[in-house]
Amino acid sequence: MNHVPVVLMLAAATPVLAQPLVSPEVHPDGRVTFRLRAPDAKEVVLRCEGTKAGPMQKGEGGVWSLTTEPLEPDIYAYSFVVDGLKVIDPANPLLKYNLLNTDSQVHVPGPATLPWEINDVPHGVVHRHLYRSAILGDDRPFLVYTPPSYDPAAKEPYAVLYLLHGFSDAEDAWVSVGRANIILDNLIAQGKAKPMLVVMPLGYGNKEVIKGGWASVRNTGVWQDSIQKFREVLLQEIIPQVEKTYRVAPDREARAIAGLSMGGTQSLFIGLNAPDRFVWIGAFSSGGLDANFEKAYPSMNETLNAQLRLLWIACGRQDGLIGLNRKLVEWLKAKGVQCTWTETPGGHSFTLWRRYLADLAPLLFQGKP
Amino acid sequence: MNHVPVVLMLAAATPVLAQPLVSPEVHPDGRVTFRLRAPDAKEVVLRCEGTKAGPMQKGEGGVWSLTTEPLEPDIYAYSFVVDGLKVIDPANPLLKYNLLNTDSQVHVPGPATLPWEINDVPHGVVHRHLYRSAILGDDRPFLVYTPPSYDPAAKEPYAVLYLLHGFSDAEDAWVSVGRANIILDNLIAQGKAKPMLVVMPLGYGNKEVIKGGWASVRNTGVWQDSIQKFREVLLQEIIPQVEKTYRVAPDREARAIAGLSMGGTQSLFIGLNAPDRFVWIGAFSSGGLDANFEKAYPSMNETLNAQLRLLWIACGRQDGLIGLNRKLVEWLKAKGVQCTWTETPGGHSFTLWRRYLADLAPLLFQGKP
Repeated sequence: MNHVPVVLMLAAATPVLAQPLVSPEVHPDGRVTFRLRAPDAKEVVLRCEGTKAGPMQKGEGGVWSLTTEPLEPDIYAYSFVVDGLKVIDPANPLLKYNLLNTDSQVHVPGPATLPWEINDVPHGVVHRHLYRSAILGDDRPFLVYTPPSYDPAAKEPYAVLYLLHGFSDAEDAWVSVGRANIILDNLIAQGKAKPMLVVMPLGYGNKEVIKGGWASVRNTGVWQDSIQKFREVLLQEIIPQVEKTYRVAPDREARAIAGLSMGGTQSLFIGLNAPDRFVWIGAFSSGGLDANFEKAYPSMNETLNAQLRLLWIACGRQDGLIGLNRKLVEWLKAKGVQCTWTETPGGHSFTLWRRYLADLAPLLFQGKP
Repeated sequence: MNHVPVVLMLAAATPVLAQPLVSPEVHPDGRVTFRLRAPDAKEVVLRCEGTKAGPMQKGEGGVWSLTTEPLEPDIYAYSFVVDGLKVIDPANPLLKYNLLNTDSQVHVPGPATLPWEINDVPHGVVHRHLYRSAILGDDRPFLVYTPPSYDPAAKEPYAVLYLLHGFSDAEDAWVSVGRANIILDNLIAQGKAKPMLVVMPLGYGNKEVIKGGWASVRNTGVWQDSIQKFREVLLQEIIPQVEKTYRVAPDREARAIAGLSMGGTQSLFIGLNAPDRFVWIGAFSSGGLDANFEKAYPSMNETLNAQLRLLWIACGRQDGLIGLNRKLVEWLKAKGVQCTWTETPGGHSFTLWRRYLADLAPLLFQGKP
């Protein structure tokens, strides 16, 4: 008889299991291979931040793939377009969750000095609160980051950064995509930022604003209502709850407000009009700005400088919003209001906002008034 | 001249915006209409818990749709299969997030008495911790639910339910899908459950276990290693951190362990072998059970009854796992171990596990030992 090697007999008796697809595969040099099993598709296109969109190649088993050039260490959003239908990567659990447009994300790891890399340092805690809003009549969440070794009985109360997300983001975007908690953990461990709380509320004062895309609401009363009502919710509901629940100073010197895109506009609208509440203001790639600055910010003049400790505005040079952001900064300066203006390469993306937060946080709550 | 009504002139001057697609649309009678825009697709099939999978019909604008029969109030997972490719519903932000298989969810609302409905009652807080595991050398999260009006200085320390997720779930599955926090909020508000903490750790002792599907690991050393290491992580790292950070009793009478699927098996394996640590045990639709019960639970006999306060095991009748779960219960009873066994209609699904949690929680930490 023929001898069949034992190892082959075992292999034949083992049911063949479909190899799990690996996607994305990050190579040591920063190239990334994306894969999608779609045997019946006619065309699959990769859309990925930081690299050109491109058609993927169909290979064995109906697996489409594409390998990029080396990408800089960062976290990039991407998706596949399969015969015109945008889909997330089913093989990748790292999502960029969004209320209107969820993408996948790929993390190209980099040195520990990058502010969003998780390091072996003490970590803060992210607390998720849910409450019934009396103003809006709905149930809404807010997140609170407490710094490592936060002490509810600390002698010195903590300062608080109110950090606002963008249009179509969920309340956890600054954590799950922006890595605000990791960035603060790192900055605090390095002694670069003061231990502070970061409060991240849901930013819609009117949930109708999120039913369709931005284009459908930008010039409507719904958007105006949403931003006004969010201001009320923040000032009358969120801040009092935070100041009751946590060991924080109920003091404008210990309150900052900053945000990205829609949240940048909200930070300016709320912050610049309430120097009795906030004296540290940051606005990243502000979107939905009212071009009628005189109407949006009626009391801008030199006297504001004695009240504000920081007004920090930034935008990417490839962001379609940079024009209006530049105009606002010029208008503020013409009014005599001091303002730090930063332009960086890049578009409307969390790849910029993580860096902006890492730049802003060390400036907050420093020095004496 | 012809008079054109002003309203029409305005309408004509307004750019036509693509109507945002509404999906899912839940009708008052419980029927649900699902929609997907996929003009180039040849076939789109709906897969939805609680109703038969079915082909969707292509309509205007390349929008595929399907309306179900009336569905009972509940939360159902679903997805679309577009020419063989499974996709989530891009119009629906309610995801059933999962490390290997993210679905969409549709909530068919029901009466306030359903345990997972958000009611106007005090809400607890969900805290997300991240720590470097000395045992595993990685960074891992665990969630802690504190009940409404949790008081870190309370005279009586709180009891803790360690609540474990299933294979391929993320650490937040019991909150984001299982609504454990909402269920506890409701039960506590009704006086049905004692105010307790619920701790939800990431359940993989070896992350290799999650690289492929269950079929690729179930009979391997990786699975054995994962369950053993998770036990170590829970007992040596998570529990000590919880008992250091929160006002909880470091006492077996105040510790329960329960879980679903993989987490059910872990609860039995960890709990039944450590009556010095846990005296309340729940196991829902346990998956990955070692069929060699004598080996997995070497010390089962009548003396356990004097130690355990509750051993609660449940499974759905349409779950492929019910056979082994029944056998385990029979074996335990033959060993003289008292056990509450519940069979309910349904398969391997959160629609059962939310109910099981709502049934189990009121039994925990009641009465005197």
